[in-house]
Amino acid sequence: MENKVTLVSKHDRLFPKMDEKVTEDMISFFSRNVKVILSEKIVKISKIQNGLKVELEHTTIEVDSVFYAIGIVPNTGFLKGSGIKLSEQGLIEVNSHMETNVVDIYAAGDCATSINRISGKLEAQPLAQIANKMGRIAGSNLAGKEMVFPGGLGTTLVKVFDFELGFCGLNEVVAKKEGFAPDVKIVRGKSRANYYPGGSTLTLKIVYDKESRRLLGAEVCSMDNGAWRLNTLETAIYSGMTVDDLFYNDLGYTPPFGPVWDPIIIAASLTMRD
Amino acid sequence: MENKVTLVSKHDRLFPKMDEKVTEDMISFFSRNVKVILSEKIVKISKIQNGLKVELEHTTIEVDSVFYAIGIVPNTGFLKGSGIKLSEQGLIEVNSHMETNVVDIYAAGDCATSINRISGKLEAQPLAQIANKMGRIAGSNLAGKEMVFPGGLGTTLVKVFDFELGFCGLNEVVAKKEGFAPDVKIVRGKSRANYYPGGSTLTLKIVYDKESRRLLGAEVCSMDNGAWRLNTLETAIYSGMTVDDLFYNDLGYTPPFGPVWDPIIIAASLTMRD
Repeated sequence: MENKVTLVSKHDRLFPKMDEKVTEDMISFFSRNVKVILSEKIVKISKIQNGLKVELEHTTIEVDSVFYAIGIVPNTGFLKGSGIKLSEQGLIEVNSHMETNVVDIYAAGDCATSINRISGKLEAQPLAQIANKMGRIAGSNLAGKEMVFPGGLGTTLVKVFDFELGFCGLNEVVAKKEGFAPDVKIVRGKSRANYYPGGSTLTLKIVYDKESRRLLGAEVCSMDNGAWRLNTLETAIYSGMTVDDLFYNDLGYTPPFGPVWDPIIIAASLTMRD
Repeated sequence: MENKVTLVSKHDRLFPKMDEKVTEDMISFFSRNVKVILSEKIVKISKIQNGLKVELEHTTIEVDSVFYAIGIVPNTGFLKGSGIKLSEQGLIEVNSHMETNVVDIYAAGDCATSINRISGKLEAQPLAQIANKMGRIAGSNLAGKEMVFPGGLGTTLVKVFDFELGFCGLNEVVAKKEGFAPDVKIVRGKSRANYYPGGSTLTLKIVYDKESRRLLGAEVCSMDNGAWRLNTLETAIYSGMTVDDLFYNDLGYTPPFGPVWDPIIIAASLTMRD
């Protein structure tokens, strides 16, 4: 029997923004429950008697309905020629006050640039929490109370079937481009104490700078207790913790939420062996 | 019908280390499922035909069996007269290298003093993660590779029925004693996005210093997604974040794990209104 849902992606793998070693369990589970067609583009969709015919470059599938996720493009065309500076991606360029290059004109949200907290560079961070905070900052500055945006980490957290997965900060490729000397530790551990029922395998990755030992990025994937580890690692990165701080960080321990030597602490301790 | 389990406590309320406003939901649920007898001590336990008779100061109950939780006392009596310094509580006093006042004699674990990361004072922190790290530090220093313990926050995380609750750092009473100017914000919010099934009420509290705006302590209680918030707040406190840093902290957002304006961010934003 065929899978009821087919996912077509132009990318050559699922979750291309995350490390394949981290998402391995999720992708294996996903592929057993969803028919996955990679490296394919949709050429044409047409109505047939009982649904839709979807023509891809190398094959054709028949389905009941089609859902699109075609990415995000800022709808800022109306600003061309206005004197308000746009980025190459078409984002409205704003400073840390959300002010554009034109005095007293502010912009906020997915249409405007955000700041990468680690690199300090302007970039797209089309995420709900960032957009909401940008709005608050723009409004506060417009009303005369100064607020300064210190940047975001592009933190992305999703639930896919029962998997909790996400990433934040810089991966090793971007970190190198930004002038860091990145190293990576990947840990496959347990989401709970071994003897506690309901746990699963948990995979996490940390990226850090070998010289300053500062944490730069993190990825987590697990069917259980993944979200808390991503947000804990995010907070560590946001605050500028080193991997040594991470080792000593006094996380709450209790069997339903992790082993005594948590995968986070094990990842930090691995950096001490080099 | 009587409850099957009876809990007897010498304290006048459950979870006396946490704020009553934070634990309210949990205590109400707990009291519906367990018969709770407060402010009572056990005077005598004796065998009867079908179990045990437990005589309290003001009443007597009959039960099948008795489980004790009588607290923790370091078993260090054998060190009296050895020249190794003990604290008033009987803990072996160690420095940040886990070395006692006697050169080359080290101690680690629940029998030894830990360091409060915020106050810098020696105190008891009989917790698994602290004890394990103290052991690692002692071993490393003994073997010639220096490790320095930066202190813990006494982070305590437990699961009671389906409630996830815990605390870390200083509460407002201790913070005041330590010379801070503490203020408190308590937020009752949602554990997930409103429309996402399976959520519950979540209560959290932050303690911070009004002058430096540094976060000093946190408490969380919820039937859902409580643990991640405690560990996130713990990481924020451990790293020295201010409440402003906490507001801007770029937590991963996704509906199964929290609303866009997370109770953590709301708590931080409340400090900006004063």
